[in-house]
Amino acid sequence: MKENVIKFTRGVPPPESFATAKLAECAAAALAEYGSVIQQYGPAIGFKPLREWIAAEDNTAVERVIVGQGSLQLLDLAAHLIVSPGEPVYVESPSYDRTLTILRRAKARLRGFALGPDGLDVDEIEQRLAGGERPRFFYLIPDFQNPSGSVMAAEKRYAIARLAQQYDFWVIEDSPYRALRYRGEELPSIYSLIPERTLLMSSYSKTICPGLRVGYMVAPQVLIQPLVKMAEDTYINSSYITQAMVFEFLRRGWLDSNLVELKELYRQRLDGMLGCLDEHMADLATWTRPEGGFFIGLTLNHNRSIVRLMEEAQKAGLELTDGRGFFPEGGGENFVRLPFCGVSLAEIEQGIKILAQAVRAV
Amino acid sequence: MKENVIKFTRGVPPPESFATAKLAECAAAALAEYGSVIQQYGPAIGFKPLREWIAAEDNTAVERVIVGQGSLQLLDLAAHLIVSPGEPVYVESPSYDRTLTILRRAKARLRGFALGPDGLDVDEIEQRLAGGERPRFFYLIPDFQNPSGSVMAAEKRYAIARLAQQYDFWVIEDSPYRALRYRGEELPSIYSLIPERTLLMSSYSKTICPGLRVGYMVAPQVLIQPLVKMAEDTYINSSYITQAMVFEFLRRGWLDSNLVELKELYRQRLDGMLGCLDEHMADLATWTRPEGGFFIGLTLNHNRSIVRLMEEAQKAGLELTDGRGFFPEGGGENFVRLPFCGVSLAEIEQGIKILAQAVRAV
Repeated sequence: MKENVIKFTRGVPPPESFATAKLAECAAAALAEYGSVIQQYGPAIGFKPLREWIAAEDNTAVERVIVGQGSLQLLDLAAHLIVSPGEPVYVESPSYDRTLTILRRAKARLRGFALGPDGLDVDEIEQRLAGGERPRFFYLIPDFQNPSGSVMAAEKRYAIARLAQQYDFWVIEDSPYRALRYRGEELPSIYSLIPERTLLMSSYSKTICPGLRVGYMVAPQVLIQPLVKMAEDTYINSSYITQAMVFEFLRRGWLDSNLVELKELYRQRLDGMLGCLDEHMADLATWTRPEGGFFIGLTLNHNRSIVRLMEEAQKAGLELTDGRGFFPEGGGENFVRLPFCGVSLAEIEQGIKILAQAVRAV
Repeated sequence: MKENVIKFTRGVPPPESFATAKLAECAAAALAEYGSVIQQYGPAIGFKPLREWIAAEDNTAVERVIVGQGSLQLLDLAAHLIVSPGEPVYVESPSYDRTLTILRRAKARLRGFALGPDGLDVDEIEQRLAGGERPRFFYLIPDFQNPSGSVMAAEKRYAIARLAQQYDFWVIEDSPYRALRYRGEELPSIYSLIPERTLLMSSYSKTICPGLRVGYMVAPQVLIQPLVKMAEDTYINSSYITQAMVFEFLRRGWLDSNLVELKELYRQRLDGMLGCLDEHMADLATWTRPEGGFFIGLTLNHNRSIVRLMEEAQKAGLELTDGRGFFPEGGGENFVRLPFCGVSLAEIEQGIKILAQAVRAV
């Protein structure tokens, strides 16, 4: 293995994005201000000042906001709460691999809907629903989707919202990248269209840092109490210390200034990677041109063995993620997820060159 | 409801036990020293310096130590890993109510063994095993048991260890109170007798503060990798920020000085409660005389309705926990768990008086 392996693997932020000194100040302030509350056990629903902040941001009642150890943990609870073994759940194909694992563990019957060049085919979804299938929920990442990088068009958001109402299913809208838009116009969240039918998930992992492990869910009134009960029964409560650190960060206005810096840094890396792809991969693959988020989704023009491609890239010092992990019902041999935020411009250039060589070699 | 309700409910430490300024210093030190590691995602097994510390303390390999969001969350993972629905699991009766909930959710078939005045009846356990029943594990709290406050005698620890070997089951030894011994001699942990058969659980909730949500498990080699995989699939990783704060606390030697102070404070409260019980309840109940931990377990002399007792106490300003929640197979109408650490001497005196009056009234 090469000494400096380039990782096009997971969607991690770069260490240079961390506001270390600010976070230390937030820890000191949180302990000074809320010491007796945040060092104690507390209700599993989460630290109230942070929940109030989120409720105001997301235009909802504080009672509907649960904060936990990352949003994935809350998704795990919600999946076990909502889905009985064998019941269908709809997902995009490809979708976030960790979510697929969670849904499989909950024994959901996964139905994937292809994310084509124009996104989801709403007619296909409607036909399935009209045929009588009733998913418990549709898990969607409308903004800068993981792993494809695509954005769901506004009319499709409206269509999904209409179908959810008509056919009575929940939408789980996973939204960790929404605040990281580098260009273009923000579109309405599905949550904003059907708040009573949507479980909105997000976290501070991509906007402050992952190590806080602070994520949240805004859940419909009817689900929030059973969700909180499951959380309490599983881990009593998540740490209020890190939740209060996030709150201190937010109330100082540091998230906004952080986002300005992050967007500038990540936009350069996105553009750098798109430029390298144009230069080295134009005859080998097609890819999305995201306006935000962490990922470019790349599809090879010809059938390859993803295993051999990964081996070939590894030999030259580039680690890739197995594209098959993102596909709920098989496929993905030709899919490569390219995370661009956690790698430098030099690594991006070198990595894409290696990728192009590896594709030619397999 | 009275204005100042006295809570004999959960096992919470008092706010005056929190080392707030020290914890703030640990947060600053951790971020300065390990900022780029602890703000990032990391392996689900936990922050390595803390794991190394725990491994040295518990005389094991670092590879066997997993740190997570409290030990209960790790127990939940272990239960789902080890137990298939319908399989028997052995517990003490009474036992920790949150564990019983976790085991029921994992669809374990709970078998409770009565904790009599002399502790578990080893012959009864051996007869069940000899009869062919094979539990997946025996969940035990040998030191200052929750909720009874009892300590398992040394010869019973050896007997359980022998049975676990002979009949091939795991022991889950929950040990959060072990360091809080106020008098008497420490006994060998079951883990020290059969480390390859024991999942040792503990946490810093009772020795530093609960709000950190840092607990750990020392698991047999054969279980650690699947356990870590389940943890990663559920929440990626627990916060290294709070884990590093714990590590900084430990390496400064502050846990030891903390324990000296906590033991002095809690010993006074234990003795205060025992004195009040002797004074007010001698003709109404029997109770354990713990040498450490958080709880005295009290059994009423005559059958009462725990619901009516709770109501009567509540009217007079005392909250109790429903004793039935601690019994895996029914019972507990006459059982009252008395947590003594989180209440002042004045509250203890007032609370026990109310309890005695309430018992007489129902």
